[in-house]
Amino acid sequence: MVVLLKNNPDPKQMENLTNWFHSMGLNTHVSVGEQQTIIGLIGDTSRVDMDVIRALDIVEDVKRIQEPFKNANRKFHPDDTVIDVAGHKIGGGNFQVIAGPCSVESEEQIIGVAKAVKASGATILRGGAFKPRTSPYAFQGLHGKGINLLLEAKRITGMPIITEIMDAATLPLFEDVDIIQVGARNMQNFELLKQLGTIRKPVLLKRGLANTLQELLMSAEYIMAGGNEQVILCERGIRTFETYTRNTLDLSAIPVLRSLTHLPIVVDPSHATGAAYLVKPLAVAAAVAGADGLIVEVHNDPAHALCDGPQSLTPAAFDDMMKRLQKVLPYAVRD
Amino acid sequence: MVVLLKNNPDPKQMENLTNWFHSMGLNTHVSVGEQQTIIGLIGDTSRVDMDVIRALDIVEDVKRIQEPFKNANRKFHPDDTVIDVAGHKIGGGNFQVIAGPCSVESEEQIIGVAKAVKASGATILRGGAFKPRTSPYAFQGLHGKGINLLLEAKRITGMPIITEIMDAATLPLFEDVDIIQVGARNMQNFELLKQLGTIRKPVLLKRGLANTLQELLMSAEYIMAGGNEQVILCERGIRTFETYTRNTLDLSAIPVLRSLTHLPIVVDPSHATGAAYLVKPLAVAAAVAGADGLIVEVHNDPAHALCDGPQSLTPAAFDDMMKRLQKVLPYAVRD
Amino acid sequence: MVVLLKNNPDPKQMENLTNWFHSMGLNTHVSVGEQQTIIGLIGDTSRVDMDVIRALDIVEDVKRIQEPFKNANRKFHPDDTVIDVAGHKIGGGNFQVIAGPCSVESEEQIIGVAKAVKASGATILRGGAFKPRTSPYAFQGLHGKGINLLLEAKRITGMPIITEIMDAATLPLFEDVDIIQVGARNMQNFELLKQLGTIRKPVLLKRGLANTLQELLMSAEYIMAGGNEQVILCERGIRTFETYTRNTLDLSAIPVLRSLTHLPIVVDPSHATGAAYLVKPLAVAAAVAGADGLIVEVHNDPAHALCDGPQSLTPAAFDDMMKRLQKVLPYAVRD
Amino acid sequence: MVVLLKNNPDPKQMENLTNWFHSMGLNTHVSVGEQQTIIGLIGDTSRVDMDVIRALDIVEDVKRIQEPFKNANRKFHPDDTVIDVAGHKIGGGNFQVIAGPCSVESEEQIIGVAKAVKASGATILRGGAFKPRTSPYAFQGLHGKGINLLLEAKRITGMPIITEIMDAATLPLFEDVDIIQVGARNMQNFELLKQLGTIRKPVLLKRGLANTLQELLMSAEYIMAGGNEQVILCERGIRTFETYTRNTLDLSAIPVLRSLTHLPIVVDPSHATGAAYLVKPLAVAAAVAGADGLIVEVHNDPAHALCDGPQSLTPAAFDDMMKRLQKVLPYAVRD
Repeated sequence: MVVLLKNNPDPKQMENLTNWFHSMGLNTHVSVGEQQTIIGLIGDTSRVDMDVIRALDIVEDVKRIQEPFKNANRKFHPDDTVIDVAGHKIGGGNFQVIAGPCSVESEEQIIGVAKAVKASGATILRGGAFKPRTSPYAFQGLHGKGINLLLEAKRITGMPIITEIMDAATLPLFEDVDIIQVGARNMQNFELLKQLGTIRKPVLLKRGLANTLQELLMSAEYIMAGGNEQVILCERGIRTFETYTRNTLDLSAIPVLRSLTHLPIVVDPSHATGAAYLVKPLAVAAAVAGADGLIVEVHNDPAHALCDGPQSLTPAAFDDMMKRLQKVLPYAVRD
Repeated sequence: MVVLLKNNPDPKQMENLTNWFHSMGLNTHVSVGEQQTIIGLIGDTSRVDMDVIRALDIVEDVKRIQEPFKNANRKFHPDDTVIDVAGHKIGGGNFQVIAGPCSVESEEQIIGVAKAVKASGATILRGGAFKPRTSPYAFQGLHGKGINLLLEAKRITGMPIITEIMDAATLPLFEDVDIIQVGARNMQNFELLKQLGTIRKPVLLKRGLANTLQELLMSAEYIMAGGNEQVILCERGIRTFETYTRNTLDLSAIPVLRSLTHLPIVVDPSHATGAAYLVKPLAVAAAVAGADGLIVEVHNDPAHALCDGPQSLTPAAFDDMMKRLQKVLPYAVRD
Repeated sequence: MVVLLKNNPDPKQMENLTNWFHSMGLNTHVSVGEQQTIIGLIGDTSRVDMDVIRALDIVEDVKRIQEPFKNANRKFHPDDTVIDVAGHKIGGGNFQVIAGPCSVESEEQIIGVAKAVKASGATILRGGAFKPRTSPYAFQGLHGKGINLLLEAKRITGMPIITEIMDAATLPLFEDVDIIQVGARNMQNFELLKQLGTIRKPVLLKRGLANTLQELLMSAEYIMAGGNEQVILCERGIRTFETYTRNTLDLSAIPVLRSLTHLPIVVDPSHATGAAYLVKPLAVAAAVAGADGLIVEVHNDPAHALCDGPQSLTPAAFDDMMKRLQKVLPYAVRD
Repeated sequence: MVVLLKNNPDPKQMENLTNWFHSMGLNTHVSVGEQQTIIGLIGDTSRVDMDVIRALDIVEDVKRIQEPFKNANRKFHPDDTVIDVAGHKIGGGNFQVIAGPCSVESEEQIIGVAKAVKASGATILRGGAFKPRTSPYAFQGLHGKGINLLLEAKRITGMPIITEIMDAATLPLFEDVDIIQVGARNMQNFELLKQLGTIRKPVLLKRGLANTLQELLMSAEYIMAGGNEQVILCERGIRTFETYTRNTLDLSAIPVLRSLTHLPIVVDPSHATGAAYLVKPLAVAAAVAGADGLIVEVHNDPAHALCDGPQSLTPAAFDDMMKRLQKVLPYAVRD
């Protein structure tokens, strides 16, 4: 961290400031220039609050040089984190495809889709029971009943399941869920993240619609700071000015995150694009760019899905995507 | 709502579709063109799920013509909503200034600031007890103790208080709070909004960092759909590419929202800009642009504030701002 | 400028680097930490290319501490620049209203509008002769004939004129134009800016749709580096996710620019909002926030304007706006 | 196009409006609802100016249903455009790699890089002679001398060349250049686009930093409307809030553009990411997502490049990228 002082700082105030840094266990290096005096802070600055320093009378600006995240940081944890989901490993060279409908709608639907995607090679079943919808008048999901239907599909197919949580008060319902998903709109619902830090179950954390990768890692840090180290990061598209796609899938996030963190990275081409015809090209692109997995929407009857129909693949289209994926995966760039 | 069909739609499917619309209580008008057939939907389309329609085989696109919000819509509620906060009215030509520190830090601090801002003309006291912070290592607020300190300041100064909620599970702590604030990062925490729809207390709803005004109104609609009609909208800056300010204050939001909704609109120039020197010019600009109130950060010792110090005004600077505000308010544009 | 070196930098390479900085007239201060070595550069770094330094083997990152603009920088030129346009001063406490139609359409139109806006208090006449339009099929302006019509209006009303240039090759046509406007889409048309640096006539430079204030100042710097110091900056709205307005007017830009530069700042509420009903509230807001002037679209028949009709004021609405403006201008925040 | 009228439109005005539409060769279909009357326009609406219609007294809003571009539209030109660059075809299943340094710096440099990239499989040589730089103090390119050095490299290696134009006045210098590049900042420099419409030479048009795909196609339309149909579209990253990458590469643009237009699509992973370590994963991702080619920066000494060094590959890294590309190209998704 570098602290830039205003011109001609008061020597007494400056001494107080450096003493304060020392009391926080930091070393300081002071550069006195003609126009500008700079204090460099050496040590672990992840707990330093830049805003407090910036508010001081003699300080003009503060710039962070090191990353503010620690548990998620590859520098302090060089090896890939590998997360085991009922025997299916994600990360460290292990690639998994998570598939299923946007919403759980009925027993017939979820079991039908589960069998179909399993046959094509998916290993984990997705399905929404609590649905975040922009409008209070839109379908909000089957809630507890939806989770029970997912558990029934798990019992029948043997596939572990992932579903989204929207409120920590419902955590008891997720006891037999294998991965808990945090949606994009809750990426900075810090109270929810703290609660998920207290459990010992994998959490798939989606990047917010207008959040940076550093903010995503800071939200992962919230979960990890509580002791839960099983965090899977998910790139699902960010808001841009483009209107032909619902969001803009940021595939650069894959190699960037790989360099910054040891956590696995999964890509959601369905929500990112909002259109079925875009899922296959972006799924294979994500795979060769080095993703650790995909999460893809599949519905046996997209035209009558209760939510997000236009972006769901049919089982046949999903099978076609999986075949192409198998071809390109050996050439994925992961160095 | 306008439904655009694909070329040469199947007549049977088209009949099914129009029958379905009729069953929802909508009238249809069909325009058959050389290249394009269009179905216009007449009636209340706020409960129609565009995604479901868009997913149908014969449909190419759907465009909404009318607003998807209803309770918040000025068309169905032409008169301004006026919210009474312990005798201080907001909306309908009544302007209030909410002021106080970012975080409640101590009894001395909150009471000192409360007395100071009251003396300058503020009528409602703000102060954070639950603080949403990007980093898990930053100060998170005094929680219940902070609310008690606010209540003590209320008892002493007679000022009603506003403070932020981050988790519906803490609602019992807010029983004597006068306005409950929902922060920008929770604007689409739909479960929290639903809970706030069940109470009968004013809610100040902040616009999310990358959310549109329509999304803000849809979130207000979540609260109002539950029966709580006392929603105050708050413009607090949106994320843009500009880096000299923390966010970009969108003052066009004031007249735009006034045309769309009857709810009062309050502006937060402190969080929007992140810098004390920008608060005064933008506070007076917001007032003349027609805002119904302001929410401003004031700290008796900004240089040692535990959060957001750089954007807090001193009591003297706040007093100066209030004097200028009094000058311009008679000329505010509210037609 | 602060240069952050990689861990354990090669001492020989480091010596070469500091020698190179010295050869550029810069002083260096080196802080050697346990994990990180930092070189602070003292002196005029506006000509240092950060990318070149960042590419060096031993460098991890470079951060700029001082602004990269010089001629436009208030630090080196503390007094406000005042630009005299045929006797009408802009800047340094002098406020001017520029008004007129989006496009010059006919002699009757431009002279009619000119007389009307002059009667209401506008001092400079605007009108487009070269129109940047997204579609090649839209009206592109009257070109040379349009400039001649503006000159005719100038002769009759005595008002100086401003019009937009799109191609340096047309500069001879602008000989009798009083202010040359550079549109938002040409803000980084660097060849055009260089040409405008060679003339001695005021240039009104509009901020690009997705450009930062620093980029705006760097584009002003292109003109000023050529010797033309008469640059007027114009905030005209930036692209955001909001759709109820065409762009988002960034009024924080006014006090931010005032702190960074001595150049005058003019605001265009018409293009920013795209809607006539938003012009008056944002015009008065811009004035109290400290702008040095406004540029407003006025058309005698907005419903039949050849471009941008919906955002044009009628002469009567403009007159109403001017009256309100006179009320608030004495209370503008300019400190 | 759909025109939404205000409530209870004046019948006389409505008749005038429909007559006007008929006079433009359009058919109209009128739907009269309880609250809303809608006019659907049938026919070629690409020349209809939505703003003019929106300004009419009786009109509330106008929505475009069909694309406003025509020459670039796949609907009217179903077959892929294939562009032949000195025997190297781009588009319609033909994939080319364009490579070379950001700037031409010396004869030794450009010829050295040309030979290296040709040996690895690149077929077209890139190199900047006119460089758009944010700062007037940064290296601006060798101009005419740079083009001559490129022509020398072409003579020696037989590779066709591409280089950027910034000002139509310099067109004569580009006589022997094989592809003329229009940079992102000039995507809406409409005067330049018009000039490039008058020549008969391929133009590579880069997407602007904050432009939509429709705006990119409208800019292509400017060139094509002039009669030059050889336009290559280039996705080079858009501005987002992410800071770890210089821009965000939008790979969805590839399949979206393929569905909208017949023009070839090339991807620039170097400028998009700004970092050499991201080029290889995104280059292969672009290829499998269906791009028609790549444009990649390669420098024989990135650490001493005069511009954009950090994003340039060494010849060895480029060769490694080309090898991986050959593996994945057979599996590219192009349906």
